[in-house]
Amino acid sequence: MPGQDNQSPPSPTAGNVEENEDELLVWEQIKSEARQDAESEPALASYLYSTVLSHSSLARSLSFHLGNKLCSSTLLSTLLYDLFLNTFSSDPSILSAAVADLRAARYRDPACISFSHCLLNYKGFLAIQTHRLAHKLWLEDRKPLALSLQSRISDVFAVDIHPGARIGKGVLLDHATGVVIGETAVVGNNVSILHHVTLGGTGKVSGDRHPRLGDGVLIGAGATILGNVKIGEGAKIGAGSVVLIDVPPWTTAVGNPATLVGGKEKPKVHE
Amino acid sequence: MPGQDNQSPPSPTAGNVEENEDELLVWEQIKSEARQDAESEPALASYLYSTVLSHSSLARSLSFHLGNKLCSSTLLSTLLYDLFLNTFSSDPSILSAAVADLRAARYRDPACISFSHCLLNYKGFLAIQTHRLAHKLWLEDRKPLALSLQSRISDVFAVDIHPGARIGKGVLLDHATGVVIGETAVVGNNVSILHHVTLGGTGKVSGDRHPRLGDGVLIGAGATILGNVKIGEGAKIGAGSVVLIDVPPWTTAVGNPATLVGGKEKPKVHE
Amino acid sequence: MPGQDNQSPPSPTAGNVEENEDELLVWEQIKSEARQDAESEPALASYLYSTVLSHSSLARSLSFHLGNKLCSSTLLSTLLYDLFLNTFSSDPSILSAAVADLRAARYRDPACISFSHCLLNYKGFLAIQTHRLAHKLWLEDRKPLALSLQSRISDVFAVDIHPGARIGKGVLLDHATGVVIGETAVVGNNVSILHHVTLGGTGKVSGDRHPRLGDGVLIGAGATILGNVKIGEGAKIGAGSVVLIDVPPWTTAVGNPATLVGGKEKPKVHE
Repeated sequence: MPGQDNQSPPSPTAGNVEENEDELLVWEQIKSEARQDAESEPALASYLYSTVLSHSSLARSLSFHLGNKLCSSTLLSTLLYDLFLNTFSSDPSILSAAVADLRAARYRDPACISFSHCLLNYKGFLAIQTHRLAHKLWLEDRKPLALSLQSRISDVFAVDIHPGARIGKGVLLDHATGVVIGETAVVGNNVSILHHVTLGGTGKVSGDRHPRLGDGVLIGAGATILGNVKIGEGAKIGAGSVVLIDVPPWTTAVGNPATLVGGKEKPKVHE
Repeated sequence: MPGQDNQSPPSPTAGNVEENEDELLVWEQIKSEARQDAESEPALASYLYSTVLSHSSLARSLSFHLGNKLCSSTLLSTLLYDLFLNTFSSDPSILSAAVADLRAARYRDPACISFSHCLLNYKGFLAIQTHRLAHKLWLEDRKPLALSLQSRISDVFAVDIHPGARIGKGVLLDHATGVVIGETAVVGNNVSILHHVTLGGTGKVSGDRHPRLGDGVLIGAGATILGNVKIGEGAKIGAGSVVLIDVPPWTTAVGNPATLVGGKEKPKVHE
Repeated sequence: MPGQDNQSPPSPTAGNVEENEDELLVWEQIKSEARQDAESEPALASYLYSTVLSHSSLARSLSFHLGNKLCSSTLLSTLLYDLFLNTFSSDPSILSAAVADLRAARYRDPACISFSHCLLNYKGFLAIQTHRLAHKLWLEDRKPLALSLQSRISDVFAVDIHPGARIGKGVLLDHATGVVIGETAVVGNNVSILHHVTLGGTGKVSGDRHPRLGDGVLIGAGATILGNVKIGEGAKIGAGSVVLIDVPPWTTAVGNPATLVGGKEKPKVHE
């Protein structure tokens, strides 16, 4: 469960050099953690070596890990590894978003004890990274491949994100089981989304039909947000809420159907 | 998210000849789509060839695909392939229901771009087809095998349908994660069920203890319907509702606990 | 769906001898069921032989089955088998809790037709047993391994139980998909938890931040219980409820947000 007070450190500024340095920093940290775990736990040594320690970069380790998780008897891990690695190479912003997500989990989830724990074990993290790769393929009009990846994420992680959805950086999908994000949904930066959350359509329209979440939004477990509604920056949605309305920035909506805490006219604004 | 206005074309009439023709039409379409995708996306060519293009019928392609998805180190894909193919052969209504489900997804879900997309990637579609095969085995008193298949569907697709449940044709399980359908539940034709929907018992009785859904019902994401209640033809259940009452035909129930829109005495009837 | 009237027979008293006898009784019953199923269903014979009949004890059969379910290309089934079998040997209470869970499913879930059905097919049962093994490793400070197992349970069964959580005996996770149980949660004996249930944090605190459930509690499908609240012995939580308050023993809470049936001052007490 993510903390609600946005305690994460300021993210690195957008310069490529700084992003590269940040990536190297996180990658060195991951290798150091994996080395320590491999020493203290022989049962994991081979796994940690093949998944982390034998790789020369975070992009390679992540491509290998995702390829292994998502492969099937008809979709080989080696094919996925090459595909993922090529896609990371073609657009460096995908990897820098992954690094921001690692930081989001590490600093916003009290149960996350290390970067390597998130990289190896958080299916929400792995689902988002695969989505970013699938989204890139979707934009390149490689739709059948993008939809195959969506299907594999749904089978393997029980997370269903349409490859058309646009998702920011520093996003935490906590626990992640059952999350559904529709084709025209937009998710801002530094958003936290708990398990069983739906960003869905109402079924009444086609076209732009899914929610838009501003930066820093927090969506509680089991919340269902439907239709082309706008959830403003820093807003919070209570667990189990059913949201069919816009929610202004820095306000909270709860209930089924959800209403604003403090009322529509005078919503209670929080920090 | 399925459209709510039942825009699907009239389903083919029940004659066997017409059903066969309809099946051949859909199968030709699927092969043509797969051929085009294999040409435009070499990364998928081998997968599409082995799963679709190498097969002589929809029943064979579907049996192969389900066998691959549901196999495990102790339940071989070849065994499942033979089992599924034999079961399709023994009861042609199972395949014609699959064809109706393909049409349901294609025409009721705006995110479904082709028949082959549904066949290959929609775990709700694959879960229902396996359920129909398991239901046939259940009725033949091959209960241990039927329950093994239920378990595999639950592991692989996170969809739990008791093999005793009776499910109509033209059914859409959209997104599908977390759907639970109990042993004595009945689902009519042309029903749309979103993810996280429960058709469950109240725990107070044994015997006939689960909901009965009429034709054309739409159940929103996360709705929980409990007990031996009747949801009438064309009724709609809002997302996140908890339904413990009968819902008359062509009316809508929403909320926790769910009430009829317009009230119990004067429920608002829709088209 | 579990019965709500706690019809299970009195559990065996705590003596080691009686627990051993009880384990042997259940194990003989499981083998007898598996033998009968293997004879009546040749398609399952090889699976039943390798998973049940070839083993000399329940601990071996369960270790083999869990190893097969949870293995991956980088975490071998043989490694998991040895790990699980050693952990069962080091703490006999883990196996006696498994036996109590088998009895809970058999007597509280009307859809459970035999012990072997639960052992082989109930992912909620398998998730809890793996959690108990992971919890033991967690207490031995083998945290990376415990967290790897948590991750595999979440991938394979869509059940996310933090290895730090403390869970009693005779517990039924029915259907199980989407269950999330946080690090500091406590679950008593003879508790029944339906699918999609969350025992989570509010995100406002670290430390002791998850619910505590007394003995005999029943949590309906989709209920979300958040924060360091206490759910008293024999209490019932309605499906889809969002619980942010303490619930006294033998009372019922329903709704979003949940309130006590009968009110806070005069909660209706049941048997």
